[in-house]
Amino acid sequence: MMDAMKIAVVAPSCTLRPEAADAVAAIVDARGDAELVIHPQCFLSDGHFAGPDEARLAALRDVMADDSVDAVWFARGGYGSNRIAEAAAADLPPPARAKTYLGYSDAGFLLAAFDKAGLSVAHGPLVQDIARTGGEAAIHRALDWLVRRDGGSLEPGLKAGQRSMAFNLTVLSNLIGTPIEPDFTGAELLIEDVAEHEYRIDRAMFHVTGSPAVRRVASIRMGRMNDIPENDPEFGSDAESIIRDWCERSGIPFGGAADIGHDAGNRVVPFDLPRI
Amino acid sequence: MMDAMKIAVVAPSCTLRPEAADAVAAIVDARGDAELVIHPQCFLSDGHFAGPDEARLAALRDVMADDSVDAVWFARGGYGSNRIAEAAAADLPPPARAKTYLGYSDAGFLLAAFDKAGLSVAHGPLVQDIARTGGEAAIHRALDWLVRRDGGSLEPGLKAGQRSMAFNLTVLSNLIGTPIEPDFTGAELLIEDVAEHEYRIDRAMFHVTGSPAVRRVASIRMGRMNDIPENDPEFGSDAESIIRDWCERSGIPFGGAADIGHDAGNRVVPFDLPRI
Repeated sequence: MMDAMKIAVVAPSCTLRPEAADAVAAIVDARGDAELVIHPQCFLSDGHFAGPDEARLAALRDVMADDSVDAVWFARGGYGSNRIAEAAAADLPPPARAKTYLGYSDAGFLLAAFDKAGLSVAHGPLVQDIARTGGEAAIHRALDWLVRRDGGSLEPGLKAGQRSMAFNLTVLSNLIGTPIEPDFTGAELLIEDVAEHEYRIDRAMFHVTGSPAVRRVASIRMGRMNDIPENDPEFGSDAESIIRDWCERSGIPFGGAADIGHDAGNRVVPFDLPRI
Repeated sequence: MMDAMKIAVVAPSCTLRPEAADAVAAIVDARGDAELVIHPQCFLSDGHFAGPDEARLAALRDVMADDSVDAVWFARGGYGSNRIAEAAAADLPPPARAKTYLGYSDAGFLLAAFDKAGLSVAHGPLVQDIARTGGEAAIHRALDWLVRRDGGSLEPGLKAGQRSMAFNLTVLSNLIGTPIEPDFTGAELLIEDVAEHEYRIDRAMFHVTGSPAVRRVASIRMGRMNDIPENDPEFGSDAESIIRDWCERSGIPFGGAADIGHDAGNRVVPFDLPRI
């Protein structure tokens, strides 16, 4: 293998399962088009997190500063990357600017902070997604994008030259107004969520679309809203109606469906897709 | 009964239970110091809500515009007042300015919008709190405050002449950056929450204390964080440590405990406590 792309895996949120790491390492070996370096920090455990803030931040900063690393692939979501995102994006070493960063869900806090800092980020599968039904397809999709910028990995509605952003809706709601909020101006904003009640989706949409900064997006597209818990009584409106409603109230064009979500079908959304 | 204070009850979020309404009406009758007018809108039901947005807004605007009403007491929390808060606070009729507005939990969206609009609001028991264990005490505490500004109803740490604000943490997190965000400058900010996982409390604290507007508070005091669901694995930090941590990170003084929460002990916090 000559000059294979080197992909570093770190876990800024929750611990990566060793069996998931092994399965993805085996896929990468079989493909032969990349070198996967799983940072030992991925297997640390400290309460909810993959190690204390300091350890998660240090591992991330290590791989960001490593000139031999071409891409940083986030291991897993859960919760916790917000706790280190501002520090991770500060005083960037030059090699940090020559990489791609890939992940979604809780890693959205890092996508936001890094996008704001001018780094190249993409919303897409995590290493731990191998554990999902059909997860191999998600892993290959991620690798196809990281290694050879395969257009087949991309969310099909993306337009070259049109800035796009994708976030978990709850994560987005929790970063608005903080120091890691990126510039939404003119972007097509794709949102998805998982395991949130309809009233919480409604509340998050109230919050997100109530932000003057978010109101500068070109449009909002709706990814999958998976595993919505039952509401008692029935909420009275489904997720698509909720999202259309808040788009209309806030004057943001609703752009239809997006092929992203907490599942193996989750397609890649680079925030800045180069013109082809 | 001569010139008894007239208290109007409306339900901007979820439906009031008839048995709760009856029980509170009986308490008010027995006290003889107030007239309670429960708006029929309180018993409407439309999916999750006490009637459609239009009906909830119309009932609220009705009692706000009614010169004979001295106080507006919110019936119940749940979810939904954010959907009408901005409209409720717009183009205020003069009688709206001569009343007190009382509630908490989801009604915090209205407390925020109304405080921003210059109305007199207080965080305290809802009518539906009669259904809690020991709920009668909460109802008397609310009435003692509304009818005769009884100092015994107040959260004991409040200082006359010091602006205070109290919110459910999750509600606060969801109104930051929206058109109903009030001015936090110099206020002592009391927060409470219920039934949120520690990781969600941590995430909401990240969000709230990451706001430059919130960083202008004088201090944060911590009310009760009730019914926290179990985290798997254990989160690794309890609610007080979480709140202290984010106060320290954001440079906001932590002011200790506050006697508010989703329970019958919930004390009253007027946002502008007059000097005595």
